Formats: sequence, structure tokens, C-alpha cells
Amino acid sequence: MEYDIAIIGGGPAGYNAAEKAVAGGLKTVLFEKKSLGGVCLNEGCIPTKTLLYSAKILDNIKGASKYGVSVEGNAGFDLGKIIGRKDKVVKQLTLGVKMKLTGAGVTIVEGEASIKGEASGSIQITSGGQTYSVKYVLVCTGSDTVIPPIKGLSEISYWTSKEALDIKELPASLAIIGGGVIGIEFASFFNSMGVKVSVIEMMPEILGAMDKETSALLRKDYAKRGIDFYLNTKVVEVSATEVTIEKDGKSQKVKTDKILVSVGRKANIANVGLESLKVELLKNGVKVNEYMQTSHPRVYACGDITGYSMLAHTAIREGEVAINHILGIDDVMSYKAIPGVVYTNPELAGAGKTEEELKAAGIPYSVLKLPMAYSGRFLAENEGGSGLCKLIVNGDDQIIGCHMLGNPASELIILATVAIEKGYTVEEFQKIVFPHPTVSEIIRETLFAKS
Amino acid sequence: MEYDIAIIGGGPAGYNAAEKAVAGGLKTVLFEKKSLGGVCLNEGCIPTKTLLYSAKILDNIKGASKYGVSVEGNAGFDLGKIIGRKDKVVKQLTLGVKMKLTGAGVTIVEGEASIKGEASGSIQITSGGQTYSVKYVLVCTGSDTVIPPIKGLSEISYWTSKEALDIKELPASLAIIGGGVIGIEFASFFNSMGVKVSVIEMMPEILGAMDKETSALLRKDYAKRGIDFYLNTKVVEVSATEVTIEKDGKSQKVKTDKILVSVGRKANIANVGLESLKVELLKNGVKVNEYMQTSHPRVYACGDITGYSMLAHTAIREGEVAINHILGIDDVMSYKAIPGVVYTNPELAGAGKTEEELKAAGIPYSVLKLPMAYSGRFLAENEGGSGLCKLIVNGDDQIIGCHMLGNPASELIILATVAIEKGYTVEEFQKIVFPHPTVSEIIRETLFAKS
Repeated sequence: MEYDIAIIGGGPAGYNAAEKAVAGGLKTVLFEKKSLGGVCLNEGCIPTKTLLYSAKILDNIKGASKYGVSVEGNAGFDLGKIIGRKDKVVKQLTLGVKMKLTGAGVTIVEGEASIKGEASGSIQITSGGQTYSVKYVLVCTGSDTVIPPIKGLSEISYWTSKEALDIKELPASLAIIGGGVIGIEFASFFNSMGVKVSVIEMMPEILGAMDKETSALLRKDYAKRGIDFYLNTKVVEVSATEVTIEKDGKSQKVKTDKILVSVGRKANIANVGLESLKVELLKNGVKVNEYMQTSHPRVYACGDITGYSMLAHTAIREGEVAINHILGIDDVMSYKAIPGVVYTNPELAGAGKTEEELKAAGIPYSVLKLPMAYSGRFLAENEGGSGLCKLIVNGDDQIIGCHMLGNPASELIILATVAIEKGYTVEEFQKIVFPHPTVSEIIRETLFAKS
Repeated sequence: MEYDIAIIGGGPAGYNAAEKAVAGGLKTVLFEKKSLGGVCLNEGCIPTKTLLYSAKILDNIKGASKYGVSVEGNAGFDLGKIIGRKDKVVKQLTLGVKMKLTGAGVTIVEGEASIKGEASGSIQITSGGQTYSVKYVLVCTGSDTVIPPIKGLSEISYWTSKEALDIKELPASLAIIGGGVIGIEFASFFNSMGVKVSVIEMMPEILGAMDKETSALLRKDYAKRGIDFYLNTKVVEVSATEVTIEKDGKSQKVKTDKILVSVGRKANIANVGLESLKVELLKNGVKVNEYMQTSHPRVYACGDITGYSMLAHTAIREGEVAINHILGIDDVMSYKAIPGVVYTNPELAGAGKTEEELKAAGIPYSVLKLPMAYSGRFLAENEGGSGLCKLIVNGDDQIIGCHMLGNPASELIILATVAIEKGYTVEEFQKIVFPHPTVSEIIRETLFAKS
């Protein structure tokens, strides 16, 4: 069968690219070996946010009396219903994607695809015994959880993020190995649900590359709410009931009923057949240019396998750039202002440069910052809540970074993303009229703060 | 006493302008006859949002079971605590304003100021028996509730928004005369608190100049939740227990325990002494140019008295423009993208042009729109929730309007505001990476919708 383009992988990069490809007039086949929607829709972004919202509702009820609202008796939850609702939301969204693609005229093949090389100028792909001849290939096969070689791990029943989303009952205690974004979001969820959570992180701070100041504030907030954090700490051995950790050469045991492993993700580049087209690889990914083109001019790669960022929204945009390049539409990928969000309660979000990056690179910058409580609406809606808004400004007065802790940072960070991507100066951005009273105003107020 | 500038009115326009004036090196005196912070902080934006958040918490508890969270027994509230918390938030913010201004070096005069004319090149102002000689005057005396000449109204004890914020007990039923933004926000609050609410509106739709399609959706949603709407309806007479209304020549009586009057606000331009400087007035306000300068070159006017919009954020920006003009800093006021928000649950927000305006002006446009449920995060956090995102695009593919119904529209509309103010085309805006999963993505998705 002949197609203009084959898209391998039906996650956010793939399904969005497929829609854009068809809209651009390309005859498109999309291969998905597991579940349309990929990790994001099926076992990542969407299911976690659904669970986290149930946790937030529970948090809100527990804190309702601060707002003059009371409940007789206690707040409780039905874990089966929470998980069931998550499944329903996932099903609704994946079905929506399928309907949209089918309606648009994308051929969806449910099966693994393998690139077999080129023949008469076409790239050959096989799947389920069928051969597909295509002009272009877009590879977006995503990533998988890294399972670290920890002594004892393979002998016990542990969770990755996938299993943690499909639980039937709550453990009394949970040890999370890896305090990156995924680990901390689960820490937040299980803490709200009453589980005793420990987080073990090798680095000096949680949340990886996110701004350290806001990350530390969030960590301290959760420490108060009962999460035990072990920083600069290595896991040396695990058993079904305890984790042996080591810090500064001293060993310690953390008792736990369950272990969640969230140390990172690795690109899925094996078994795709990229070697048959001599596509150049990197250590943990595929090498691409600013058009998402690999070393083979008709093979493109997007999403987690490019190694730039393990974020669905980066993948979506990369897919658009790739399709535009194929269609001859002027477009390039920019990584200047990729937003990152941690869906804890309160939320943490950032875009652009961090102080840590700038310091390491020796680039001068200044910081403007204000407590979130400087916003009247934040005060009205976050009784006793703290939080921070900081803007990083370069020598030309341009906004190059923004980091926020406090709800709804996830929904506000796009504003800073736009400012950074467009290269707005502080003075220029000050002239925008922000609606009052909103939490978004904190960004405007911070523009007027003294550095 | 001599000052560079006298600011008359300590609402958002005035207190922000005072801060900017001092920062710019102007010796500044600020007159406030009643409460620093003005209507916005004391009896408007902030107190209403504080009450509405308590109502939202109550709504959330009532809807918690949809998210797998349960409460034993019923949710209730303590009205005294809700009102008390509102007072606390207002006090915290007004004290903050006072401290900031005092700290910055603004002279605050608590008293009514009256312009008396000019003498030896200075403008003379008196307050509390003192005379102040100033080079510039910024008048931002705000607005007051309009009390319509309805038969019987002066004989009963009714509420305006001010009294409705300081209640000791809830009426069983409430008739709201005027379905504009203020009326509808109160309708939302009292509906959540269990009061039987009727809204009487003279026009064919609620919410004044907001987009009609989203306004109608919101109205229908509240009608389902028990609010009675009377559109195209005139109030002809009121008594302590009923409102006589008239529609299409037919008269009807609406029983009610209390009446809230919210038909509009009028500029406070009497008693300021503007006539002593021969400042040119309009029908309901002061005439100003794009620098907020009145017909007198050293007298500026900002906020509700200019008649452009009765919004705090417009006032704040106008104040900045006025001070910048005085300081010789290049700046002009733009009304191209003033956001407007209705803090109901769900929220409604808009910026830029409406279809109604464009139709009336005969300007061609196209509409891109999507249901809010197209956003995965909206779906995750709004079980059964509807809502709409619409973008208005001109012939040059530029975004000129945005109207949204659905939480958190109040925090998202600033994004459209920036796009409209900066004149983004749809294609240009499509290239921004939006964080996934967020409700803000609905704006990006809508950019790709078919018109």
C-alpha cells in the first residue's frame, strides 16, 4: 500500500501530526502498537491529572472551614470510583482522538511498525505482514520508564507510574524512588489520600531542572503535610517491606508497604528499524535539525525520542513543525520557552531559563519577584497560602524566564511562555491591561517589582 | 503646602498612580474621602470574589461525589464567618496599600478634596481647611451606584451591591433588578447559598456588552440551577414583598423577601471643582485624550469618570499612562483589548471585539470556536461541565476578540488580551507551545478549529 507519510507512534506527537498531515493533503497512515493517545492519554498526563483533581477536591473539603463552609462528619473517598472516573475520562479522550483521525481520513493501523529500508525511492515499512511504501516517515515512538539496577528490585512487586494509576487499594505507606516531576505528583496524590509517603532523591533538590527556589518551597510545604524527603540519597537495596538508603556514607532503612519507581524515562528507539535507513542516533535519542528532520531527509523524528524534553506539548509542536516542513510551509522548532508544570497542590510551573542554568553558563541576569499573596484574588482564594512568582530578566530588559509556585500556576505559565518566546521587555509587557482581580495579575505586579 | 501632583481618589487608579508618581520623583499627595482602595477593594472586586470563592467551595462539596469524594452528612456554611473572612481579606489588602504608599513617601490625606482654581500658575486644592498648591492634578473619583426612579423604591429597605456584601442573614428570596455583571455575580452567590433568586433585565440578554452566545449559555445553566430570569422586562413598581414587572405590555408580580438594585454606575464628577478649571465634561464623565489629559493640560482624569469602562484594571492602566505623560515617558492608552470577567461558576470572560459590535459596525469577521470539553484537563476537572471558547478573527487573520465560558476563564483571558493587543495572527499564535494538559490549551486548539 502506498502513502505519502507513515507516522509511527500514536501519542500526542503522532496523532496531532496525522491530523495536520491530512489537513495538508498528505495520504497518511498512523501505526500504534499499543493504545492510541500514547503514554500521555493512557497512562500519563491525563489520568494523573484526573486523580490529582479528586485529591484536590478532598484537600478543599478538608480546608473548607477556612472559607466559612462546613461539612458534617468526615470527608472520605471511594478509590474504585476515583479510578473508574479516570478510566472514563481516558476512554472519552482516546475515543475522541480515534474519531477525529478516522473522520479526517487517517488510516490507523493497530500494530507495531518496522522500517525495512528503501526500494525504488520509497521507504518500506511492514506491520502485521503488510508492506507500506511511503515517501516520508515521522517517528514518534515515545519513551518508557527506566528501571534502575537496584539490588532486590526485580524480586519484588513494585509500581511504575503505570501501575500506580490502576490500584485497587491504597498502601499504608509508599516509598517513591526518584523525586522528579512524576514522583512528586504521585507523592502529592498519595499524601492527599492519607498514605505515608517517603521520597528518595539522589540530587540535592526535588523536581530535576525546575527552578530550585520554588522547588524547595514546595518541598518544605509537603514536608509539613507529612511527606518525608531524603535528598542527596542513594537507594542501595530494596525488599518488599523496606528500602535501604545511603547518605553521606551512612546507611538507613525506610519501612514501606509499596515502592514506586520514577527515576526517569528512556527513548523507544529499538525495533523501529532506523538503522535500515542509517539514521544518525544520539546517546539517548535520534538526532534532528530545527525542522525535526533526521540525517535521512525524508525521515523525521518528534517527541520523547528527540531527547529535548519529555513533554507532550513539545512533542505536539515538533510534530507540527515536521509536517509543515514536509508541506513546504515556513516553520522552525523553538525551545526558547517550553513551559513545564508540576501538578501538585499548589501547582508549580516554569518556562524559559532558570537561575541555575544562567549561573552555570555565566550569563548575567536579574530577578524580579513577589509573593503570590500580593495578588488580591490569590489572597481571596488561598487562605493561609504562600507561593512565589519570579521573573528572570536579561541585560536587554527582556523576560527570559518565569517560575511560579501557587494555584493556578499551570494555567498562568502560558502567559510567560508567550512573553519569553516573543522576547518582550519588561517595559513593553507592563503596558498590557490584566484583568482585575485575577491571580494572573501577579505577573504584571512582578514586572513592577524592584530587582 | 506644595506638591508636584495631587491625586483625588484613592481607588485602584489613584493608589497605583500615586505609587508610580513617587517612583518617578514627583512629590505626591493623595486625597481619599472615604476608604483607601476605593469601591474595588472595599465594596467591589475583592469582597465579592472572596464571597464567591466560599460559594464555589460549597458548590464543589455538593459536586464532590462526581469525583469519587464523599462527605458524611450535609455541607453547610456559617454566613458570619464568610462575611468575617471577607472583611479580613479587605482589611489586609487596604492596609497593604496604605503601608506601600506611606513607605513610598506618598502623603495621604483622609478627606474630601475640592479644586478651587489656579493661582500664580499652581492649581489650588482645599481639604479639611488646608490649601494645597500643585502643578498637576489627577482626578479619579470613581463612580456610584445608580438608583433608578422606580415607584416605591425609596419607601423600602433595598440593597445595592454595598449592602449585599454586609448581610447578617440570608433572605429566602431575592429579586435582582439589573442583570449586568454585578447583578449576575450576586445572583450566582445567593443561588449557591440556597436563596431563591430572580433576575429582572430590561435588555434581551444578561451581562450587557459581553458576548451574547456565551452569556446565553451561562443564563441557561443558572436557569437550570433555579434562577428565574425575566428578560426584556421592565420593573414598574416595588414594595417590600414584591416587584411588579412588565413585559410585552403584560404586568406580573414577583414575590420577594429582598430587592437588590444593580442597574449601573454613574461617574462621581460633582463636588470635585472641575468647573473652576473649566475642564470639559461629557454626558457622563470627563473628556480626556489618549494621555488621559483633560481639556486643561495639567489636569488628568482616570478610571470610572472617563466613561470608557467601569473596570479597575482599565483605571490602573489609565493612571499609569497619565503619570508617564506627566513624566515625559512615551505611553498612550489603548482600549483595544480590555478584558472583562464575570466571576460566576463557571466563569465567563471576554476581551476585544464581540460579534455584536462587529455586526453593528458592518465589519467582516470570522469565528473559530470549540467546546471547552475539547481540553483534556477541562474534562478531568469539570465532570459534566460544558462551556465554550470562541475567537473572533478579522480579514487579515488577526485575532480581534475572544470570549470564553468555563473555569478558569478569568485567568485565561489575559492570554487572548495579549494576542489582541499585539495583533497576533492565527498562524503566528499557533506556533506557541502551550503546556499540556491545561485548560489554556483550548485557546490553541481553537486556533486550529475550522471557521
